[in-house]
Amino acid sequence: MDTPTLQNAVTTYIEAFDKADLNIIANLFAENATVEDPVGTPQHVGIEAIKTFYKSAFDMGVKLALNGKPRCAGNSVAFSFDVVMTGMKISPIDVFELNADGKVQSMKAYWSADNMG
Amino acid sequence: MDTPTLQNAVTTYIEAFDKADLNIIANLFAENATVEDPVGTPQHVGIEAIKTFYKSAFDMGVKLALNGKPRCAGNSVAFSFDVVMTGMKISPIDVFELNADGKVQSMKAYWSADNMG
Repeated sequence: MDTPTLQNAVTTYIEAFDKADLNIIANLFAENATVEDPVGTPQHVGIEAIKTFYKSAFDMGVKLALNGKPRCAGNSVAFSFDVVMTGMKISPIDVFELNADGKVQSMKAYWSADNMG
Repeated sequence: MDTPTLQNAVTTYIEAFDKADLNIIANLFAENATVEDPVGTPQHVGIEAIKTFYKSAFDMGVKLALNGKPRCAGNSVAFSFDVVMTGMKISPIDVFELNADGKVQSMKAYWSADNMG
């Protein structure tokens, strides 16, 4: 998959948080996508569950700030960023895997208490 | 899996490059581990193939420098780092998944030409 398509998924994801816009999320993810945040916890399966998950974050006023360039490889992109909310910051690494339609099929977020500050 | 075990896998990996020591690699990875570097290219399967892969890197004098803390989650750890060699730098994100014995079962490296400089 070409690098701009993968980079654009990351840019669009950050824009969804900036605008707190669930329609952007609905367009970005596949209908049957999975979100595992953090990895090791139960997945959110399907676009309705995923919208519910992001609605909570948007309601809390969460914004994202990218740390360095996304790392594109195959159909996947990994990116380091800060999750910024009132009085708190988390610094995860997320991995998106895109399907043939360019939609995010799988999102995995890597972070623990050690990455909060 | 506890955070120190996951963090230690990353520290040990960097030490293997520092010392150019294939025995450290052999102890770090599971016998039937897979290495996909970058994601989207054919995997190196099994410890002998993996040692051959890292021998090439060690012979080139490659060293690693971590960018920020590893992000531990579940049985996995994602980390951002620089690959430093003569006249060149690559900035990947790697993801290790560990097995129940604390050995690296799967390594995936995310990077493309866009992350070289």
